Amino acid sequence: METVSENRCFGGVQGVYKHASSVCKCDMTFAVFLPAEAAHGPVPVLWYLSGLTCTHENAMTKAGAQAWAAEHGIALVFPDTSPRGADVADDDAFDLGQGAGFYVNATQGPWAPHFQMWDYVTAELPDLLASQFALDMGSQSITGHSMGGHGALTIAMSLPGRFRSVSAFAPICHPTASDWGRKQFTAYLGSDHALWQGHDATLLMQKGGFDGPALIDTGTDDQFGDLLGTEHLANAMAGRRQEGTLRLQKGYDHSYFFISTFMEDHITFHAEALYQ
Amino acid sequence: METVSENRCFGGVQGVYKHASSVCKCDMTFAVFLPAEAAHGPVPVLWYLSGLTCTHENAMTKAGAQAWAAEHGIALVFPDTSPRGADVADDDAFDLGQGAGFYVNATQGPWAPHFQMWDYVTAELPDLLASQFALDMGSQSITGHSMGGHGALTIAMSLPGRFRSVSAFAPICHPTASDWGRKQFTAYLGSDHALWQGHDATLLMQKGGFDGPALIDTGTDDQFGDLLGTEHLANAMAGRRQEGTLRLQKGYDHSYFFISTFMEDHITFHAEALYQ
Repeated sequence: METVSENRCFGGVQGVYKHASSVCKCDMTFAVFLPAEAAHGPVPVLWYLSGLTCTHENAMTKAGAQAWAAEHGIALVFPDTSPRGADVADDDAFDLGQGAGFYVNATQGPWAPHFQMWDYVTAELPDLLASQFALDMGSQSITGHSMGGHGALTIAMSLPGRFRSVSAFAPICHPTASDWGRKQFTAYLGSDHALWQGHDATLLMQKGGFDGPALIDTGTDDQFGDLLGTEHLANAMAGRRQEGTLRLQKGYDHSYFFISTFMEDHITFHAEALYQ
Repeated sequence: METVSENRCFGGVQGVYKHASSVCKCDMTFAVFLPAEAAHGPVPVLWYLSGLTCTHENAMTKAGAQAWAAEHGIALVFPDTSPRGADVADDDAFDLGQGAGFYVNATQGPWAPHFQMWDYVTAELPDLLASQFALDMGSQSITGHSMGGHGALTIAMSLPGRFRSVSAFAPICHPTASDWGRKQFTAYLGSDHALWQGHDATLLMQKGGFDGPALIDTGTDDQFGDLLGTEHLANAMAGRRQEGTLRLQKGYDHSYFFISTFMEDHITFHAEALYQ
């Protein structure tokens, strides 16, 4: 693992690191914020999975998360959203290929060799983090935005016991019924829809839900609202009496101005679960 | 004036606007954050002047200022750092020409026609803002970063009565004695050093200081520390018993991770003066 940069930030350190990923078969970059408390022992971890087109950098610089993570003594992890590089397959569309990994393990065509973001985020990167940083891997929570909200929700529900709490900002809620999902699942996973179901938050919520509290915020003026399918997840959450809160925030859109506005709420929510 | 974008943010609106500037003789873009209170009447104003290479956008997206401005009901103004466009003179160096206006009115060579940032920030833009937004122009304060900290300090000291308080993040403190200053003043103002003195915070502090409180934060690990000349301003502030605080923040550098860490302190500081 190589240190790309480290900057003092809210009493802790905002670092960017690079490593050779064996599951993605390319160099991967990620960012970690360590609060001051990490100098004295392992701290709880909040994962932030980013949306389409993003790298590790967008949320690190624009979400305003470090202020609240520092207040609660929590580390933040910002993975990239896909494998990268000249050798990695890509597509001209912004919503397929590099920057659009969708947090699945691709089985199809040119994507399969590198696009293994599920395994990267749930196995390889956690193992690396546990070995390199003062993190309490027994106290983890997860959040994300848009495609990353989809990732956070599907990963949290698929790995019972791993995460204490889950939240999402404007998540893609029902990708098997959305143009943000069907296109990518067809490309990465193929046409067998049975394989898609483990990557759809609404279907997972109907099936088993999440074994902890959930918090979801989506703007009433989200310009991608029809692609998110929030109503399906709302129905599924209420239907199975999932412990959680789903808020439609008046006037907010899909931007980081929306995310940063509600970041304090989300980190406070996770802190309660992480310190239980 | 044309609206480029408006996003809901911390209960208010983060807007970006464009207008034809008569003093800079080009289109200029700026950003304004209006807190929720602005819907009911004029609110106090905090100017944020940015550093080298920045546009209106950097601080708007990375400084985390809206959270605290919203808490105190204060508007934020983020001007650009220079005139822009294909017709505007430029230089290959990052610290001269577009993105490096240094908050002066150029009198020399190819710069003079457009590089009138002093007049733009102190006259044209305030007039436009007063006519277009619910701002209480009787209650203004000013801050900035690096070159923008230089701008904030020199403008505040040169316009007694205009600003209630001044602050700066890692400001260029003594440009007439620094490579961040001599080069640009020679290019924009010519070789008559007498004309430079009105644009040097240390010299202005020695001469008359600021008629209100001042707050300055600079990191002990600022990678441009030698160019900033903080020691000269510290000497001048203490020498004339300027009301104010100068803090050297251990381990922090010149980045927005530093700025965002101390933004709450700065806005709280300005709020006290703005609501007196």
